[in-house]
Amino acid sequence: MTTKVAILGACGVIGQRYVQMLNNHPKFEVTALVDVYPGKKYSGVTDWGHGGGFDIDIPDYVRDMKMVSPDDIGSDVSLAFSGLPSKVAGQMEEKLAKKGVVVVTKAGDYRMEADVPLIIPEVNPQHLSLIKEQRKNHGWKGAIVTAPNCSTSTFVVPLKPVYDKVGVKKLTIVTMQAFSGAGYPGVPSLDITDNVIPYIGGEEEKLDIESKKILGDGKKPAEYKINVYCNRVPTLDGHLESVFLETKKKITVDEMKQAMRDFPGTGLYTGPEKPVIVREEKNRPQTRIDRYAGKGPSPYTAGMSVTCGRFRDLGDNEMSFVCLAHNTIRGGAGEAILIGELLEKKGYL
Amino acid sequence: MTTKVAILGACGVIGQRYVQMLNNHPKFEVTALVDVYPGKKYSGVTDWGHGGGFDIDIPDYVRDMKMVSPDDIGSDVSLAFSGLPSKVAGQMEEKLAKKGVVVVTKAGDYRMEADVPLIIPEVNPQHLSLIKEQRKNHGWKGAIVTAPNCSTSTFVVPLKPVYDKVGVKKLTIVTMQAFSGAGYPGVPSLDITDNVIPYIGGEEEKLDIESKKILGDGKKPAEYKINVYCNRVPTLDGHLESVFLETKKKITVDEMKQAMRDFPGTGLYTGPEKPVIVREEKNRPQTRIDRYAGKGPSPYTAGMSVTCGRFRDLGDNEMSFVCLAHNTIRGGAGEAILIGELLEKKGYL
Amino acid sequence: MTTKVAILGACGVIGQRYVQMLNNHPKFEVTALVDVYPGKKYSGVTDWGHGGGFDIDIPDYVRDMKMVSPDDIGSDVSLAFSGLPSKVAGQMEEKLAKKGVVVVTKAGDYRMEADVPLIIPEVNPQHLSLIKEQRKNHGWKGAIVTAPNCSTSTFVVPLKPVYDKVGVKKLTIVTMQAFSGAGYPGVPSLDITDNVIPYIGGEEEKLDIESKKILGDGKKPAEYKINVYCNRVPTLDGHLESVFLETKKKITVDEMKQAMRDFPGTGLYTGPEKPVIVREEKNRPQTRIDRYAGKGPSPYTAGMSVTCGRFRDLGDNEMSFVCLAHNTIRGGAGEAILIGELLEKKGYL
Amino acid sequence: MTTKVAILGACGVIGQRYVQMLNNHPKFEVTALVDVYPGKKYSGVTDWGHGGGFDIDIPDYVRDMKMVSPDDIGSDVSLAFSGLPSKVAGQMEEKLAKKGVVVVTKAGDYRMEADVPLIIPEVNPQHLSLIKEQRKNHGWKGAIVTAPNCSTSTFVVPLKPVYDKVGVKKLTIVTMQAFSGAGYPGVPSLDITDNVIPYIGGEEEKLDIESKKILGDGKKPAEYKINVYCNRVPTLDGHLESVFLETKKKITVDEMKQAMRDFPGTGLYTGPEKPVIVREEKNRPQTRIDRYAGKGPSPYTAGMSVTCGRFRDLGDNEMSFVCLAHNTIRGGAGEAILIGELLEKKGYL
Repeated sequence: MTTKVAILGACGVIGQRYVQMLNNHPKFEVTALVDVYPGKKYSGVTDWGHGGGFDIDIPDYVRDMKMVSPDDIGSDVSLAFSGLPSKVAGQMEEKLAKKGVVVVTKAGDYRMEADVPLIIPEVNPQHLSLIKEQRKNHGWKGAIVTAPNCSTSTFVVPLKPVYDKVGVKKLTIVTMQAFSGAGYPGVPSLDITDNVIPYIGGEEEKLDIESKKILGDGKKPAEYKINVYCNRVPTLDGHLESVFLETKKKITVDEMKQAMRDFPGTGLYTGPEKPVIVREEKNRPQTRIDRYAGKGPSPYTAGMSVTCGRFRDLGDNEMSFVCLAHNTIRGGAGEAILIGELLEKKGYL
Repeated sequence: MTTKVAILGACGVIGQRYVQMLNNHPKFEVTALVDVYPGKKYSGVTDWGHGGGFDIDIPDYVRDMKMVSPDDIGSDVSLAFSGLPSKVAGQMEEKLAKKGVVVVTKAGDYRMEADVPLIIPEVNPQHLSLIKEQRKNHGWKGAIVTAPNCSTSTFVVPLKPVYDKVGVKKLTIVTMQAFSGAGYPGVPSLDITDNVIPYIGGEEEKLDIESKKILGDGKKPAEYKINVYCNRVPTLDGHLESVFLETKKKITVDEMKQAMRDFPGTGLYTGPEKPVIVREEKNRPQTRIDRYAGKGPSPYTAGMSVTCGRFRDLGDNEMSFVCLAHNTIRGGAGEAILIGELLEKKGYL
Repeated sequence: MTTKVAILGACGVIGQRYVQMLNNHPKFEVTALVDVYPGKKYSGVTDWGHGGGFDIDIPDYVRDMKMVSPDDIGSDVSLAFSGLPSKVAGQMEEKLAKKGVVVVTKAGDYRMEADVPLIIPEVNPQHLSLIKEQRKNHGWKGAIVTAPNCSTSTFVVPLKPVYDKVGVKKLTIVTMQAFSGAGYPGVPSLDITDNVIPYIGGEEEKLDIESKKILGDGKKPAEYKINVYCNRVPTLDGHLESVFLETKKKITVDEMKQAMRDFPGTGLYTGPEKPVIVREEKNRPQTRIDRYAGKGPSPYTAGMSVTCGRFRDLGDNEMSFVCLAHNTIRGGAGEAILIGELLEKKGYL
Repeated sequence: MTTKVAILGACGVIGQRYVQMLNNHPKFEVTALVDVYPGKKYSGVTDWGHGGGFDIDIPDYVRDMKMVSPDDIGSDVSLAFSGLPSKVAGQMEEKLAKKGVVVVTKAGDYRMEADVPLIIPEVNPQHLSLIKEQRKNHGWKGAIVTAPNCSTSTFVVPLKPVYDKVGVKKLTIVTMQAFSGAGYPGVPSLDITDNVIPYIGGEEEKLDIESKKILGDGKKPAEYKINVYCNRVPTLDGHLESVFLETKKKITVDEMKQAMRDFPGTGLYTGPEKPVIVREEKNRPQTRIDRYAGKGPSPYTAGMSVTCGRFRDLGDNEMSFVCLAHNTIRGGAGEAILIGELLEKKGYL
């Protein structure tokens, strides 16, 4: 039996990725599309294709589906994926949670609430248990579950097995982020062509507080020092990050690579077999070449692995590596869907 | 004695070019900046630099100038340069014309009105005489004078000497236009990166009707068949156009080049010595290399010449060439300022 | 039984596309890779990935295959696909043809020879019969069969049904071509970033003479006037072309679209069901969005359709449209493989 | 009296910048151009314009100058600026030094030799005294003086006043470098478009060893730990670097900014008044906007300042900032010319 699913913000960059990645999904059936113009056909209100991806045309299954307002989401819908922008998202998501829907959201509004799980399925699935507390606190039948910001997932996925093995005292991260991370219309071409912008509003704080919540024990955040600079570079998709870390215990480059290679997948439909792909070439990962790494059961699940390379032992328990992930798949719609699959498996729907 | 000048839409892509090009102007003194937030300093309300250009910082002369609302433009201002978007522009420009200001505008609202001059100073300065009729029709002390769309100027400037010599029966033009032509924020980077968009709303009609008005006798538009496709390409500045033309009388490639080379400049401050630069290299003009062609008295007047190349005799009185102009200078602020200088010289202010 | 196949120039942009598109091919088995360093493993000598495409890694089936020199191609190989650059290609291809191999080549050396078929499988499959003449003339057991230049295929595929219906008197074409068309390393980033280069050496002549040979009767080229400007624009893959045509008989926009929509595919494995996709949106085809149009049996056969749009009736039997094709798939490796499949079906191997 | 000057590698990206920046130089007169094709005119052998810059055409003063071979450089030439690629450069430069010419070179061959000065004029002019030792060691009348790699200058210029004030224990640097840094043809467009390449061969070591030599006392290199990742990003010109530093003594953000603002220029012709420009905007420096910072006496000397921003106190004597410099001007031809001016002033010619 399939789970009936709503997509909130279905016309945006993340929303269109949800539509692509849920095409022919074995367990989830999209029955409600929410964005603008309730009553109109999806194909009439969405500007398909700006967000890239493999599908030139709107998938048939949603082409003629009529947009609904959040209030008209059927009571048979038990799961919603949200690509709404922060601030807009909060109220609508709360309303649905109250009504009994479990909302998995990319919006930042509730990520840091104590009783809201902030989940990367491979990293901290156990934090889903916060849902019980959340339901009790609010009297909700549904729930709000959050996925982290794209630039957080990119380094936390490969860091997790190292963190577990030797601990982390300090992180220094410099990101080079694609402009699809800013949504649509997002970054003006006049701003980013032939340019690097060394600032993304609110982004640097997210790598700090989100990673600590995810790597924490569910109650208390993890503790380490973290220095971050975030840069917007002229690429369509894919966030590349330089990571320097000071570990609590010694680890070699080979041990680090092995820990990442051995880091297990979830076994869920949208999850890659290997969450982390370690490459040995000296000039990899590269944004355009590696962003679709991690083939899944269909082309629509490609882009779910993080690719790492350029490992170095810097002495004094300092190590460094470069990592790359597709920001609207691994760091976006794909990760949210993976959370949905985890929720379903764990019986939270 | 200097003419006091207002800039309308001073924060936009064209508005910032006005600010740059009027820096140290020998005859025009900017005394009023109109855009948003009247009462605030220009440096506080403009997002300087997105439009490119030589100046990294806001020129000192406008840095602390307080924005004014159109109603507060002083009565000593006799000339206004407008970079307002079409539709917004009309009402404000009319009001100023009524009040006695001569408004030179890049907005499209009035370009095709019978009593509104549509001027390229090198091509049809005599059309300024329409101002008399306009003043009579509306009872205005000022006037509205329009500059053509950027993609029109690009081919009309080099076409004019050929048109005068051998006439034109038919034009087929394909444009490759920079995204600064769409203003700011304008074209999203997600739309144009690694892409060509074969459509610019309303643009193709403009090349048709505007060129015919400009090349007409002031009463009746010129007559020829014109086929146009406009394309947006991933370049910052500079519109490159492939032009195929059928002439009424025979002309050789050498005669065409010579006619363009001999086409005289205006002798005005912002006007280039040579409005058309003919290049012999087989791979020129190129957008990035040639867009600042036409050095003037200061670096701020570079970019006022149209560069042509790749001339061909196609037989049957068919000729072709490629032309390129800087869309926010020759096809933008520079051309409007040149019109202002012409108005001043001809005593219309 | 499968046909054993060699790839010439297997490390280049086109060569890597051959490798991708022949992965899991139902009839062709790649058994020889020719480029540089005979004796070395393919994975050791190719710089995989610069040419884009879906595969992040070298497909397993060729990873450890040893490069061979042309002289060591086994006698069981009856078909070769060549991505060699023109001039280099000629001698090697002749040698193989002599030896009994049918070489399908993207190189330009022999395209215009009277006894060498220049083939687009949907357009002029009957020209393959020239092979008999070629074999007789040279005493070869194999043959050389050529595929046209990428910018030729792009407009000839959609033109063909119109040509058959109403004839063509004149064509005016302006191309906007991706830099992958220049191979690797090809166009320096310093040349093409933020630029349009209005010239591609030797390209414009190809659209003229190749299209006339293809649309001719196998003996005599088709006759029409053709004016072409070729431009290099900053896109990775995909050639977009503005096409103006004067037909011999009248045709309406609707009839033209219908003729293109009805243009039949080959029924061959790599051939798309619909060689031409007609789009109704006013801003399509777009290079990045539409270049992979034409899904085939696997993701590796996507990109084989030409997408058309922006149709117009210009009066006086003049029509115009915009077309786009993937230059290294439809206009490259894919078309050559399609020719190979046609040769196999028609019994030429 | 002017100094007669030769340019080695005059057709390359750096060589063309030398030609631009020495146009109308008050003390240096270019009398010899060396690259390929001795005997031919410069305008016939250089592919002018690929390297960007303000000049659309070859400056008149070199247009018809005949290329010479290194052996034919006149004995009146006492200074040479070299933009030759490393490895090629060494032998030719030695020969000239022997002959009595002082060669200022961007090539890497001799940078780390104990008796070869590696100079940034604002930072370590006193190291020029190594020339005496060099002349004694080799018996040369001329000398070889080296300028650092572009990515070294970018951070060493702003670091110097901080280094002098509070010392440095550790540096962590991530660069985002333009492709003009790789020369011409340099980086293929297929490699860098829509991509970040996290590796530049040999570059990371240079930031380490060169900065230590420059900040050292002329005999012994400076001592600090340095971690570097170098990235190639899709920008034409301008290297942007994220810099994290641990100082020996405490310094505040305000003190750091002040030290940089107070860092004195050389007073030389090509040197900017302020070697470091500190910006307060949260999203600056930006590559495209700030790369021409540091106006000098003519537009041809713009681009000589390093722009810094985004300063932070990270606690524990850790500070961070972002810096940007034009790699072919400040980090290229401009810095070499500045060294030449210093040599002239100090009487080394």
